[in-house]
Amino acid sequence: MSASSALLDEEVRYKGTIELLKAVEDQHGGVIINIEEPMDSYDFASMLQDSLSQWRTQGKKGVWIKLPRKYSYLVASAVEAGFKYHHAEPDYLMLVYWIPNTPNTIPANASHRISIGAFVVNNNKEVLVVQEKNGRFSGKGIWKLPTGAVDEGEDVCDAAIREVKEETGIDTEFVEILAFRERHKCFFQKSEILFICMLQPRSFNIQSQVSEIEDAKWMAIEDYVAQPFLQQNELFDFLTKVGLSKLKGKYSGFSTLLTSTSSCKSHVYINKNDSAHLLTSKHHQP
Amino acid sequence: MSASSALLDEEVRYKGTIELLKAVEDQHGGVIINIEEPMDSYDFASMLQDSLSQWRTQGKKGVWIKLPRKYSYLVASAVEAGFKYHHAEPDYLMLVYWIPNTPNTIPANASHRISIGAFVVNNNKEVLVVQEKNGRFSGKGIWKLPTGAVDEGEDVCDAAIREVKEETGIDTEFVEILAFRERHKCFFQKSEILFICMLQPRSFNIQSQVSEIEDAKWMAIEDYVAQPFLQQNELFDFLTKVGLSKLKGKYSGFSTLLTSTSSCKSHVYINKNDSAHLLTSKHHQP
Repeated sequence: MSASSALLDEEVRYKGTIELLKAVEDQHGGVIINIEEPMDSYDFASMLQDSLSQWRTQGKKGVWIKLPRKYSYLVASAVEAGFKYHHAEPDYLMLVYWIPNTPNTIPANASHRISIGAFVVNNNKEVLVVQEKNGRFSGKGIWKLPTGAVDEGEDVCDAAIREVKEETGIDTEFVEILAFRERHKCFFQKSEILFICMLQPRSFNIQSQVSEIEDAKWMAIEDYVAQPFLQQNELFDFLTKVGLSKLKGKYSGFSTLLTSTSSCKSHVYINKNDSAHLLTSKHHQP
Repeated sequence: MSASSALLDEEVRYKGTIELLKAVEDQHGGVIINIEEPMDSYDFASMLQDSLSQWRTQGKKGVWIKLPRKYSYLVASAVEAGFKYHHAEPDYLMLVYWIPNTPNTIPANASHRISIGAFVVNNNKEVLVVQEKNGRFSGKGIWKLPTGAVDEGEDVCDAAIREVKEETGIDTEFVEILAFRERHKCFFQKSEILFICMLQPRSFNIQSQVSEIEDAKWMAIEDYVAQPFLQQNELFDFLTKVGLSKLKGKYSGFSTLLTSTSSCKSHVYINKNDSAHLLTSKHHQP
């Protein structure tokens, strides 16, 4: 046995005793490390290096580390090993490392926030409006449509119903999306899509939300549109006209169609007036 | 002078010499710390504590730390001081701390990814289709519509044109959004909205993208819809019918209207067929 092969043998035996980080395989040829217990940062760095060597040999692609905030003292070791940040939520940071020399096919981070504005009109031609406690309209006496953010995992149509209920106490039914607007860099580098939704009220007694809403009321549409802020904002002025046109049955936005695939249910938003004749019995209409 | 007031005096003089972290005020009563130079982690922790005390006295609300990845050794100190993660991009981590006792009004992190599917048909009633090198359709001989992710800061209509150009070399003009689909938890906890866009081709010679596309071609619509995968997927089958209906002028989706506010230009997507009569000369039609 030559000296070099003895060395190799020694190395192999040593490698045989090393401890790797616990990880599960993902569906894209990569692995996900979930750190769930406290670790010494030196041990972590050493095990991460050994694990990466092994995964490289095995032809693994993306390596993810989901690191709870309480183990933030390990972030620097992962960065030292070449990891980049992928995304973060309040209580964890996701880091990622791409092993192969081929182009990185790691999916991009979420890029958009989604919000809704709700156009709710009762049988007296009064529109449901609020005055907000915070934000750029607060303290200006402006009556505006209820608006809010769509939560992660929430359908746009459900978010509109939820926000109206939270802000005004009014129960509604989703009718359709009249239009939507996209804006960029409104929040750090992120983009936003605002869906203007028409809802049909199912209750009428207002109970406004104490924490965020100064006041809420049903307001005659002519008084709503006569507000200087609406007169000066061509977009909202136009969208109000679109909403009124919808009330007269002269406008078709996108309403919802519930579809299901092998993996999950999802909503499709479509001009159902124009496409109803294309639907077969296979399609579910909620 | 009493002992306690002497102590106070001493304390004030000491406070006068402390060094605070450099920060700029945001528009919501908060401050943003940009760490742009290396710092000792002990100094950072100490200055952060002093800065928070001062900002608390001043009635500041949200405190943001934008921490480049190269200073990841400071993450643990910020977490120790009570900061939570807000969001991350490959090269930085944004942390946030809410000072007041009032409810936290810090905006949520981006929640959605946006993607597009492009329906492009030429005058021979052929649809532009691709075979992908990666992903769940690769190696299955399936011809599908070009799809892709909308980048941060990119308009949906521009993303559709860009993806078609990148994948197939074909120049197109945006016509309208036929429909869109929302799905949840398709990417960690994030949601996705897929916009199905109709585009009008402006060139016809295909040059498919080497890195991501196995092949691209113009395919007779009847051959496209006859593929088993499309026959089995009621949603795509239905959306194809909607696209064909649009080609016959019998369907109205959402087309774009360019509007400008005081701060920025933005696109509004709306059923323009049904709302053209509501537009005034103030509105721009691209």
